Amino acid sequence: MFTSSDNNKELFLGIDGGGSKCKAIVMNANNETLGTGISGPGNPLHGFEQATNSITESANLALKNAGLEHVKLNELYAGVGLAGVNLPELFKQMQDWKHPFKQMFLAHDLLVACLGAHHSSNGAVIISGTGSCGFSCIDGQEVMIGGHGFPQGDKGSGAWFGLQATKQVLLSLDGMIEPTLMSNVLLKKLACADATSIVEKIAGEKATFYAQLANLVFDAAEQGDKVALAIVEEGVEYINNVARSLLMSKPSRLSMLGGLTPRLQPKLDELVQVQLSEPLSAPEVGSVFFARQELAKQQDLVDSK
Amino acid sequence: MFTSSDNNKELFLGIDGGGSKCKAIVMNANNETLGTGISGPGNPLHGFEQATNSITESANLALKNAGLEHVKLNELYAGVGLAGVNLPELFKQMQDWKHPFKQMFLAHDLLVACLGAHHSSNGAVIISGTGSCGFSCIDGQEVMIGGHGFPQGDKGSGAWFGLQATKQVLLSLDGMIEPTLMSNVLLKKLACADATSIVEKIAGEKATFYAQLANLVFDAAEQGDKVALAIVEEGVEYINNVARSLLMSKPSRLSMLGGLTPRLQPKLDELVQVQLSEPLSAPEVGSVFFARQELAKQQDLVDSK
Repeated sequence: MFTSSDNNKELFLGIDGGGSKCKAIVMNANNETLGTGISGPGNPLHGFEQATNSITESANLALKNAGLEHVKLNELYAGVGLAGVNLPELFKQMQDWKHPFKQMFLAHDLLVACLGAHHSSNGAVIISGTGSCGFSCIDGQEVMIGGHGFPQGDKGSGAWFGLQATKQVLLSLDGMIEPTLMSNVLLKKLACADATSIVEKIAGEKATFYAQLANLVFDAAEQGDKVALAIVEEGVEYINNVARSLLMSKPSRLSMLGGLTPRLQPKLDELVQVQLSEPLSAPEVGSVFFARQELAKQQDLVDSK
Repeated sequence: MFTSSDNNKELFLGIDGGGSKCKAIVMNANNETLGTGISGPGNPLHGFEQATNSITESANLALKNAGLEHVKLNELYAGVGLAGVNLPELFKQMQDWKHPFKQMFLAHDLLVACLGAHHSSNGAVIISGTGSCGFSCIDGQEVMIGGHGFPQGDKGSGAWFGLQATKQVLLSLDGMIEPTLMSNVLLKKLACADATSIVEKIAGEKATFYAQLANLVFDAAEQGDKVALAIVEEGVEYINNVARSLLMSKPSRLSMLGGLTPRLQPKLDELVQVQLSEPLSAPEVGSVFFARQELAKQQDLVDSK
């Protein structure tokens, strides 16, 4: 069994922190997975304390899952990929965190997703989960499309589909548009009797709440609901355009990631679909790669001195 | 001069509390305006404490403006019309407020707007300010269209126009749609250089923030900006439909109210425009009418015993 006293080996933690959950993986120096853990939201945009708590909690869960309870967090090299830290202020806030790890290497979620999906820092990804974003990294040149957050951006994401559905259902309950079966499905899902009770229920709700409604839009569309179909078509066309835009820079590979992938990918334009490759590993594995890569750079610096 | 020791006369306070501000008016029993005051947001949906503070503050300002600093709030009959209290929970919360007035008569903002605009409880109004809503009251039968809040409802409101513009500008900065002059105007207005700085600036912003951007959409549309024009057309068509729907129940009068009225009203369908009447008084005056009406009912009850 691998133990912390095994000095020849180093332990790596990979974190993928998004709007809904934070995933952790513990790997050894041979890239073998030892354990995994999942906790709550890890996007510091929705709260620094929640994000850092989620990171620590998921890390401890991953150690426990690996049977490595005796290993302390300060023995781990942590690659931490987080949504939101593409914003300079949040990056700085997280970088200043008095983290519990041996060393922390911070990256935005898109870069670690790319590293995980392609086992290379050259490639492109489209993510659609709670939020949505396109990203490519080619010869160190990063391009980001979208990822602007809720409700002003993140078109084609779970939160966007859920909010669009809610808007249309409220309009239909007002008699402003024809009601469709989606109205009843949403009322049932929210356990509401009318527009007023929907409004009471959703007041102040955030992206993660709306993302839970995304699947019912796809379900209704598949049953021929016209309003749902129009929403799905608009979202799918946006993702198509993100893909087309990313493909223009000719990435070696393009993968689609995130919770909505199974619903969205089969609906994309065929010319886009044929260009998609299955991701090789998950973003949290990409975070481990990132930590190893940054650690190697440090080592090179030390060696060259 | 009118003083609080003048026992033959009663003093009435009228409150119109919305998402951006709270307006107060002090009137005497002859419906003469003695003073007015304005304070911050008065919609309890965005915070009970802020709403109640705004009500008290605007009331004190109105007394001061009337030269009635010596009058205490507990000498006033208060008609309090508030956005948000169409939701039963908020109505109850506000009704339970240990208010400082002699008596408080609580109504939703639409009812007092109707009373003010028509000097009658029969009529209809369309409000577009920070939020939007249609309302008619005919023979005691109330019909409400919209008013479902931000970001899920309130189409055609200031916040809706501002959010739509922000979304389109972010898409254009990503190269997902053609940039138009509105992109530069919004960047300038927000003092931002790019999409990232916009996202940092607007993260977590509420309806009142977006409502401040509404005028630039209308300005851009008037200069022929295609993206702005499409937003304006969609918003105007929604307000047209609200008006058409309200007119079906044949209200004696229909008025349009709220900060966006000067921008929206001239763009409405001509068949709608000819049916609009200028509001006779402001909503806060309607709140005074509501207080008097409710007080008279109490009096009738007492007299009939």
